[in-house]
Amino acid sequence: MKLIRFGEAGKEKPGVLIGEKRFDVSSIVADYNEAFFEDNGLEKLEAALKNNPVLPEVDASVRLGSPVARPSKIICIGLNYVDHCKETGAPIPEEPIIFFKSTTALCGPNDDLIIPKNSDKTDWEIELVFIVGKKASYVEEADAMDYVAGYCLHNDYSERAFQLERGGQWAKGKGCDTFAPLGPIMATKDEIADVNNLSMWLTVNGKTFQNSNTSNLVFKIPFLVHYLSQFMTLLPGDVISTGTPPGVGLGIKPQPIYLKAGDVVELGMEGLGTSKQVAVAYSK
Amino acid sequence: MKLIRFGEAGKEKPGVLIGEKRFDVSSIVADYNEAFFEDNGLEKLEAALKNNPVLPEVDASVRLGSPVARPSKIICIGLNYVDHCKETGAPIPEEPIIFFKSTTALCGPNDDLIIPKNSDKTDWEIELVFIVGKKASYVEEADAMDYVAGYCLHNDYSERAFQLERGGQWAKGKGCDTFAPLGPIMATKDEIADVNNLSMWLTVNGKTFQNSNTSNLVFKIPFLVHYLSQFMTLLPGDVISTGTPPGVGLGIKPQPIYLKAGDVVELGMEGLGTSKQVAVAYSK
Repeated sequence: MKLIRFGEAGKEKPGVLIGEKRFDVSSIVADYNEAFFEDNGLEKLEAALKNNPVLPEVDASVRLGSPVARPSKIICIGLNYVDHCKETGAPIPEEPIIFFKSTTALCGPNDDLIIPKNSDKTDWEIELVFIVGKKASYVEEADAMDYVAGYCLHNDYSERAFQLERGGQWAKGKGCDTFAPLGPIMATKDEIADVNNLSMWLTVNGKTFQNSNTSNLVFKIPFLVHYLSQFMTLLPGDVISTGTPPGVGLGIKPQPIYLKAGDVVELGMEGLGTSKQVAVAYSK
Repeated sequence: MKLIRFGEAGKEKPGVLIGEKRFDVSSIVADYNEAFFEDNGLEKLEAALKNNPVLPEVDASVRLGSPVARPSKIICIGLNYVDHCKETGAPIPEEPIIFFKSTTALCGPNDDLIIPKNSDKTDWEIELVFIVGKKASYVEEADAMDYVAGYCLHNDYSERAFQLERGGQWAKGKGCDTFAPLGPIMATKDEIADVNNLSMWLTVNGKTFQNSNTSNLVFKIPFLVHYLSQFMTLLPGDVISTGTPPGVGLGIKPQPIYLKAGDVVELGMEGLGTSKQVAVAYSK
């Protein structure tokens, strides 16, 4: 299945994408949230859809939200592509680097990117996300895929001055509002033949900056589930973003390139669709 | 008011502490969560209590949970006491250091502390927490206290090897299950005459290790609300932990001291009550 959420921000309804058409499934499930995944919602929805229920079609003009509801946490993996490590001058980590993104950063795949006040180093990062399917604590790597519900496309926007020049941890530069456009879809595991061989690309104003493949991941999903679950309990619906390949603005030579109002960022990943964000200045 | 939540873990009900007695207010409010704070729940509860409703008394033997429900985020401030900076050998930060604690770490004030698998450096940190009362984005320092609902006692447990020796950010050592015992109460602002003059203490097996006062905070609550809200939106019910004074196990000379199964940690803060955690080894 390909899950979508559609409608006004904060009031999204659950839907599914079938072929090119979107359908409203809010008569079957309340939302794609912790309770949904915990209660075997994916199996139940799949079973319900097999009965060919009459579902309202959703017009292509309707806004898409994040394909999953606000989770308990968004965990990101740092420096998880070999080439991205080289680009930033950092050594390949011996074990995963992890950090949190404020869940208030979550937004729809095509929502505007709001450049925060006092920001002049807002940067992009295309990433493969996996969604946690059930509560995970001290999971063995061999069992790890049982804890994965599906996959999404993510742009892990990052304000490099906030992240790297404001003291201490990375938290300040990762969680600004609209810094986590997710989707368009959450593809269930069965939709993706080989998650370790997905091509991906990101352009800014039509020029390609990132162009890689998940085959370049240093730490792959089963190890990440195992590893993260040694330090905290993962909950159903949690969003885990697996790191970005080379080509972020910070790494451009001879001068880094950052986003300004009016810039158009487009990205896509094999099997997970495309998204597009237009950068706008913060205004209130 | 002094808010409590009581009952089985994961099924807590809201209550209030009046004098020494606990009362069940679940007939008036559903829970102390984001929706409660967002919807002026504090004012409504206070108004309802003025009508002297008949409330079931809750026995003192009933377990207390965290006085607020699982929030969207737990943000912690690092190195925010002058003396704690000296203890750890770190300079006083020029601006706040911030990091996230996984919200799955949240537990009741007197629940057992579970020492994680493969941990031998589990440490304590008494902290003053403030609870966010309404949505906060780009808040001026002068207005900041309007965004604070109240205060709690917190023990920001930290696994120092996970935090400092496992690569990158601090996230791994801060969010283990049971690492955020909160409470016993959330005291509303009016209950605390001067939040910048609260004495606090923490003992391990009866020996005092931390003994300080919130007057030693480097960055105080109004500045923290203002500062954090420059980087992300704070939501009603969010938990902000303001940092710990000297006396953590990591700082003990000549050798750090860490917790082992059977150790008893007790802590208290003026106006916010006391809590007690018994350390136990992880077992499944």
